[in-house]
Amino acid sequence: MIPRLYIDGPLKEGAAAPLSAAQAHYLKNVLRREAGDDVLLFNGRDGECAAKIIEVKKKGGAALAKTQTRTQETQPDLHLLFAPVKRGPLETIVQKATELGAARLSPIVTERTVAPKINIERLRAIAVEAAEQCGRLTVPSVDEPIKLAAALDTWASDRRLVYCDEAGDDEKKQWGGRQGRAAPMLETLKSLNSNADKWAILIGPEGGFAPAERAALRARAFVVPVTLGPLILRADTAAIAALALWQAALGDWRRS
Amino acid sequence: MIPRLYIDGPLKEGAAAPLSAAQAHYLKNVLRREAGDDVLLFNGRDGECAAKIIEVKKKGGAALAKTQTRTQETQPDLHLLFAPVKRGPLETIVQKATELGAARLSPIVTERTVAPKINIERLRAIAVEAAEQCGRLTVPSVDEPIKLAAALDTWASDRRLVYCDEAGDDEKKQWGGRQGRAAPMLETLKSLNSNADKWAILIGPEGGFAPAERAALRARAFVVPVTLGPLILRADTAAIAALALWQAALGDWRRS
Repeated sequence: MIPRLYIDGPLKEGAAAPLSAAQAHYLKNVLRREAGDDVLLFNGRDGECAAKIIEVKKKGGAALAKTQTRTQETQPDLHLLFAPVKRGPLETIVQKATELGAARLSPIVTERTVAPKINIERLRAIAVEAAEQCGRLTVPSVDEPIKLAAALDTWASDRRLVYCDEAGDDEKKQWGGRQGRAAPMLETLKSLNSNADKWAILIGPEGGFAPAERAALRARAFVVPVTLGPLILRADTAAIAALALWQAALGDWRRS
Repeated sequence: MIPRLYIDGPLKEGAAAPLSAAQAHYLKNVLRREAGDDVLLFNGRDGECAAKIIEVKKKGGAALAKTQTRTQETQPDLHLLFAPVKRGPLETIVQKATELGAARLSPIVTERTVAPKINIERLRAIAVEAAEQCGRLTVPSVDEPIKLAAALDTWASDRRLVYCDEAGDDEKKQWGGRQGRAAPMLETLKSLNSNADKWAILIGPEGGFAPAERAALRARAFVVPVTLGPLILRADTAAIAALALWQAALGDWRRS
């Protein structure tokens, strides 16, 4: 398997691309690669190039881009908004959302968010690694956390916000109940105008949204409330399921 | 939040149900509950009952079932077959497949399975805990691992096997390529007879299926090859995505 690396700088056939100290360490000491070995490079803008390692040293390295292997493609304009959860599921959300093609990841602080300190740099590193592994040509951006109210107040009205209305206390019974007003997500996506090109998905905290938050969400014209079945899904499960349904109904998974 | 417990024995209004030592320990020492406190009980057959703790001791405990809160419902007849992966993603698969309503979990040994020793009892405990948390009335069974060839040779021909044909080396390029012959999963499920009631989903190992395995799968009439988009998904991501698509297209998630 040829190692695949995300680089910050420009990527051009015939040009050398610098590798970070971490990348050089990974290539040299983990994968046991050396000068002359093959790598694949991408930078989120210039597609992907086959390259040869020039050097891998302690302080960094370089690779020579040889031939473009893929041209840059447009990606779905899909954001994931999620209430931060514990570290394990939080990292699962970032890794899986990258594999599932989200363009931007936005931690959202809600009333019931049990917010551990979020290490944004670590989440960005997880997104880079997942993009390298899954073959993406881009890396999703990871935002600093903001409050739900601030996110709604600054929302661009041409972006639909698909709101997974799980575990709402006034409409869902404690266990195994059903939502009163939210419709199934797949059916809802299919019934909306699929030519809309700006989308976002919002997943709540483990304890659900507070009643006032749910009302505030439902009051916005850009919000589309949906449900993901009768069982109570964990936040990471809901995020993965919702992204998969979106990709299958409206995104890249429609192509064979 | 009222603790929800899966019990082995019968569940009947007015009858006492024994609790295991582990359950008694959990109630007493983790949740700080005592005699007289509320619990919810289910056993996979008799719905769910509100109950009161009678006693919680070191060797076990008991609860008195009071009122049935939910009657037993039929669940989708959906199996998940998956090649065992490393412990972390393996446990993710079992936890999430339970939340996503799979009735049976079958580890399948393939040519490229990097099989660590699987602790089936631990996987069953994860399934029980996930069922308790998500509000399911049943717990999926977890099979002992069997080889892919054996699974196919003993397959009941009236059960469709949706085969997620990811990372196949002869049809998918190393990174970001597309399958030649598998169609998108959602479209494929929608085009099949949705009155069929026995289903299974098969997810391969991280290294993909070997060419001979892929040919063997595609030769069976009950096998439906599908793809989950252009990126290379990890095994746990693929399992969660495929179960979510099935539930949305043909299962419980169609109801609002």
